[in-house]
Amino acid sequence: MSTIDSLAHAFMKFPGIGTRQAKRFVYFLLAQDPKFVENLAQEIAELKNTITQCPECFRFYPQVGMNAVCGICSADADNSMLLVVEKDTDFDSVRKSASYAGRYFILGGIIPVLDQDPESKIRIHELLKRVEQGASEGLTEIIVALSANPDGDATRDYVIKMLDPLSKKYNIKITALGRGLSTGSELEYADSDTLRNALKNRN
Amino acid sequence: MSTIDSLAHAFMKFPGIGTRQAKRFVYFLLAQDPKFVENLAQEIAELKNTITQCPECFRFYPQVGMNAVCGICSADADNSMLLVVEKDTDFDSVRKSASYAGRYFILGGIIPVLDQDPESKIRIHELLKRVEQGASEGLTEIIVALSANPDGDATRDYVIKMLDPLSKKYNIKITALGRGLSTGSELEYADSDTLRNALKNRN
Amino acid sequence: MSTIDSLAHAFMKFPGIGTRQAKRFVYFLLAQDPKFVENLAQEIAELKNTITQCPECFRFYPQVGMNAVCGICSADADNSMLLVVEKDTDFDSVRKSASYAGRYFILGGIIPVLDQDPESKIRIHELLKRVEQGASEGLTEIIVALSANPDGDATRDYVIKMLDPLSKKYNIKITALGRGLSTGSELEYADSDTLRNALKNRN
Amino acid sequence: MSTIDSLAHAFMKFPGIGTRQAKRFVYFLLAQDPKFVENLAQEIAELKNTITQCPECFRFYPQVGMNAVCGICSADADNSMLLVVEKDTDFDSVRKSASYAGRYFILGGIIPVLDQDPESKIRIHELLKRVEQGASEGLTEIIVALSANPDGDATRDYVIKMLDPLSKKYNIKITALGRGLSTGSELEYADSDTLRNALKNRN
Repeated sequence: MSTIDSLAHAFMKFPGIGTRQAKRFVYFLLAQDPKFVENLAQEIAELKNTITQCPECFRFYPQVGMNAVCGICSADADNSMLLVVEKDTDFDSVRKSASYAGRYFILGGIIPVLDQDPESKIRIHELLKRVEQGASEGLTEIIVALSANPDGDATRDYVIKMLDPLSKKYNIKITALGRGLSTGSELEYADSDTLRNALKNRN
Repeated sequence: MSTIDSLAHAFMKFPGIGTRQAKRFVYFLLAQDPKFVENLAQEIAELKNTITQCPECFRFYPQVGMNAVCGICSADADNSMLLVVEKDTDFDSVRKSASYAGRYFILGGIIPVLDQDPESKIRIHELLKRVEQGASEGLTEIIVALSANPDGDATRDYVIKMLDPLSKKYNIKITALGRGLSTGSELEYADSDTLRNALKNRN
Repeated sequence: MSTIDSLAHAFMKFPGIGTRQAKRFVYFLLAQDPKFVENLAQEIAELKNTITQCPECFRFYPQVGMNAVCGICSADADNSMLLVVEKDTDFDSVRKSASYAGRYFILGGIIPVLDQDPESKIRIHELLKRVEQGASEGLTEIIVALSANPDGDATRDYVIKMLDPLSKKYNIKITALGRGLSTGSELEYADSDTLRNALKNRN
Repeated sequence: MSTIDSLAHAFMKFPGIGTRQAKRFVYFLLAQDPKFVENLAQEIAELKNTITQCPECFRFYPQVGMNAVCGICSADADNSMLLVVEKDTDFDSVRKSASYAGRYFILGGIIPVLDQDPESKIRIHELLKRVEQGASEGLTEIIVALSANPDGDATRDYVIKMLDPLSKKYNIKITALGRGLSTGSELEYADSDTLRNALKNRN
């Protein structure tokens, strides 16, 4: 197998990339300036050295100096709320919306419906530990912010069940993202489940 | 202009139908059994005779016997709630969701953002009259159920403003459909406005 | 079943129309001016009276006066070529392209691959008769112009086989539409079959 | 700018990759095994060392031993035909179609319509040199195999014009890919230009 094929093979593992586009990536690199290709290789090689996973929220972030936790966790934020998301790109979406000022926690995965071994799929023990810590710092609400699909719902139910003892012990409210009409959706084309939620959550 | 072209021209006024599909409709009819075409013509001709607009909710419905109002308005339903929608297909969607048991009102239109003459676009006077009637029958909540887009929001704001005096006079709560993640949507791809609503309406 | 439902049911038989759009058509008609609806019903009712099928090319056309055949068949056109298409909309597409000046014949259908009874699907006997007539009027080429898909190919092969005896008897050339890159297509994304044809038919 | 952002920025230059997917690539790499990431970086770094551009056809290929030209150019193939394509992925598509057994030449670009400096966009001098060489090896046909769009046509016209003197001098035929219905296309939806070509290239 030539480097063209083996590199195309590696690109095919990238999210959303098929055979054809993987091949185009390789030809794209071959046609680029050597400087660009060298830089790319170097940045990829150094990625894991310069980016750490925050031990508190489990986001990936660029470590600077001797900081023990990421910029969000060390920043002056609202300790009373903890937002639990599946992955870093979900975190990015929430940040971009500029509608939340509390703390974050990245679950690192999702639990497929009827999965037999949920503990191995997400950072549930780390979350429980984080909530214990939060309890001593004024945590009053945990927002479970997962996708509105079957796997997201299964994960939400599992997380809420696991958090229940701590919720009672420390009197922490547990909430989930509101369901209803998403911006731009037309009533006529809304599915029955969304309409039911939009009616139930009317305000 | 031949009947082919003039009929295609009429079909082009149908919602969502372009030149090409309009033409296909005509050829489709030409290829059908004469019986089918005659029946279709007759049903269209009689449509307005057999279908009336309910004077209470303004839905189109098949008049049977001497009924003064439609089957939904004459049925035994929850008089405490009135759901205000834009059009008959929205009414159909809500019915299909089987998640609402109260009364309905069809506005008959939508008010474009910055429109100067909102009164001419929707049945606002009929709605006010309907609410007066409802007040004497136990109405306690009006749900403004419009699409989650700029025109829907402009219409909602106008309707709520116009209902305000009656709301205060009769102590009727006015609500709107809940906003948030619609069923099936992924957090990563949710727009900022939807995320903001999902966070605000968490529960 | 109300007129709303039965009319929606009829519209669902229209090409490309599903449940929801059929319903929207009915509500659209209910919201229209009575004049528009009456005209539509009348045009549909009269469609089959004003539009005839040409006994020579089998197109649907508006009969005017005592003409025995359609305007295309009676017009001064090139008698040496006969273009065989599946249906009226295909005829319309070729007319619109303004790239053919000969005679036409509408097969009235397509033969599915492996069909056991091809004679019942298309006007093959009428075509043979039309070719006999054409032979006496200078016909030298029959162009089989069908879609480039399996059913189109099966129909093309059957038509060519059936025309073979007349082709030999009268020395009439039989051709099919050229295959290759369609306008706008990129080489990179062309399927192997299209590339093979484009190479074979290079010029 | 962190490595996350600078690497995402580099991925955004990849063909067809937007902001969001570039970010997902970075998080994907962060979540991968260190071994995978190291291998990827190394393969990218070595890509230009292991892959050479063939001096005869200008394809990228993995150099093995002391071969002066690529495997296709050194293989026993039909010297009478030379297929001229824009880029390596076009070459791949033709190979995959298994419908051509001659020689290849990669132009390395396309000439936008009305471009003032065509010589700088494609390897026209290298092509002329390759044709001179081919003439002494039995070349009798050059197939210009470009996309069926305005830029492809502009490039085709320029290439044919530039090849004209050599074509006359050595009696080499110059052809282009056949135009017509591409596999799977329906007559009814074919554009006028495609129909015109399909009629002109009927066979």
